[in-house]
Amino acid sequence: MKNRQWLIAARPLGRALKDDDFTFVEGEARQPGDGEVLIRALYLGFDPAQKGWMENIGGYVAPTEIGDVMRGSGIGEVVASRHPDFKAGDKVSGMLCWQDYATIAGRDLVKLEDDELLTANLGALGTTGMTAYFGFLKHGRPQPGDTVIVSGAAGATGSMVGQIAKIMGCRVIGIAGGAEKCRWLVDELGFDAAIDYKAEKKLRSRIHEMAPRGVDVIYDNVGGAILNDMLGAMAMHARVVICGGISRYETGQLPAGPENYFNLIFMRGTMEGFIVLDYMGEYPKARARMRQWIREGKIHFKEDVQSGLENAPRTLMRLFQGQNFGKQILKV
Amino acid sequence: MKNRQWLIAARPLGRALKDDDFTFVEGEARQPGDGEVLIRALYLGFDPAQKGWMENIGGYVAPTEIGDVMRGSGIGEVVASRHPDFKAGDKVSGMLCWQDYATIAGRDLVKLEDDELLTANLGALGTTGMTAYFGFLKHGRPQPGDTVIVSGAAGATGSMVGQIAKIMGCRVIGIAGGAEKCRWLVDELGFDAAIDYKAEKKLRSRIHEMAPRGVDVIYDNVGGAILNDMLGAMAMHARVVICGGISRYETGQLPAGPENYFNLIFMRGTMEGFIVLDYMGEYPKARARMRQWIREGKIHFKEDVQSGLENAPRTLMRLFQGQNFGKQILKV
Repeated sequence: MKNRQWLIAARPLGRALKDDDFTFVEGEARQPGDGEVLIRALYLGFDPAQKGWMENIGGYVAPTEIGDVMRGSGIGEVVASRHPDFKAGDKVSGMLCWQDYATIAGRDLVKLEDDELLTANLGALGTTGMTAYFGFLKHGRPQPGDTVIVSGAAGATGSMVGQIAKIMGCRVIGIAGGAEKCRWLVDELGFDAAIDYKAEKKLRSRIHEMAPRGVDVIYDNVGGAILNDMLGAMAMHARVVICGGISRYETGQLPAGPENYFNLIFMRGTMEGFIVLDYMGEYPKARARMRQWIREGKIHFKEDVQSGLENAPRTLMRLFQGQNFGKQILKV
Repeated sequence: MKNRQWLIAARPLGRALKDDDFTFVEGEARQPGDGEVLIRALYLGFDPAQKGWMENIGGYVAPTEIGDVMRGSGIGEVVASRHPDFKAGDKVSGMLCWQDYATIAGRDLVKLEDDELLTANLGALGTTGMTAYFGFLKHGRPQPGDTVIVSGAAGATGSMVGQIAKIMGCRVIGIAGGAEKCRWLVDELGFDAAIDYKAEKKLRSRIHEMAPRGVDVIYDNVGGAILNDMLGAMAMHARVVICGGISRYETGQLPAGPENYFNLIFMRGTMEGFIVLDYMGEYPKARARMRQWIREGKIHFKEDVQSGLENAPRTLMRLFQGQNFGKQILKV
């Protein structure tokens, strides 16, 4: 079976991704060995962290090499299995990488319910949803009545954070780019307010207007000036969750650090980072809860589905240009 | 009784202190009312936070007004008392402010043991020592064997933090300005290593050399580039304690925020601020323990004693120019 693959050709350290960071090649799919499963990819999921993986920063996943198949999660259908838990036709998720066929140890795969929520396993029920769930609940430590502010609020993670915060009885302010995204947050997802940072000249005063007594939980996906302005609005004993920093990925030079970190003193605040993989043992319980919230209509999500494996690099780039609206997915 | 007083004449917001931020006046001491005590000041203690009090930043203490007697802690002797717990001759500590005589409610005073550690009540046994004790133990959460790094390590707070860390079985690296201070840290206080940031061109590589597996607790009194370089050296699950930011006090523009805050993600770190007054209920126990450590020779401290109330403003300025070596005190 012919197997098209995207290989890592260069490390985009400290600059934007470009087309020739990847090479498109064609080979043969490898038949599964003992304990392995051969999978045909149906969908790939995209996440800003993938750029960091190409750069080998962070050290929380195994390093990549130039020439490796580009790493990425996906959903596929089992073609052949030499693992007792999987049979042909099963739907699975795992690190399928950017290729038509993946041959992977069964222990690294999750068997999926083959229902209308299939692609949600790349978003709300996948790592994205888990990142929102554990980052917010374990590190944001929300209390009913808290005011919560989320940057990148219309993104796959941010939109989940805001909705989980509403379920927890919090008041939620989202920061997103553009009027359409802001309307969606308030009208469709039930956010209490949304700020369009592209239209807003004085973000900090606007946050202060909307949360005059300060914010109890700050969930940041963006970094840079937006994080700094949010830190200026801490309430007493605020919890700041550092989830990501999309503003840091594209620039040659990192954006300045947040000088308002000093508010942590006056407000007795905490700022925490986390890696969602540390909570893997608790994923099944969290997934079951998210699935129920989705069925009850308490959590909505959007998917931005591109198509064709040949478009994988361009699909990843959409994230850094803010072009996607909803979880970025590619139909292989 | 004639009472000389230093009044706040201007707010030094975003700039260095200067002489005419203060006015020296002379009036009469006020006799104590019911429940009050009249105290003659013996020593005043100095702390960087006093500049912030003049600026009314932070909001964690009552605001000051232009024309107020300059706020500051001190040690004095009771001259007259209308409070049952105090009698003439008692030694007390409290917010005596910059003046010869203070008239204060007895409930706001602490009666002191009149021993050879009298002035230590402004340093190791005072707010400075409490700041080191609670900031490090409650927010640094040290474990035996941890590597600890302290900035402003030769300062009144930093030097206590390092010595408490040694008592807790940690390995301690101090960052200080100048060879003399660095020698004192290692030779007299038992720090494992000291870095002279004034002589060191590449602070981050030097920290990395001294702690190749990273630092578990970062205790920062300085902010700016030094904080950023320390954040670059976090070990897994590092705790970052934000205690102060002396580098932030003098400049018209704040130093850039620490871009390495992002390491909190990869290292699953926490960064916390605190206000020591929140632990006031636990001061007696902490003081007793500090007193014992001092008597056992496990904690050493240095005092930099200036003299004459007329020199109070210049004595405060010494802190921001790094001129003091040891707790800055003024003999009234």
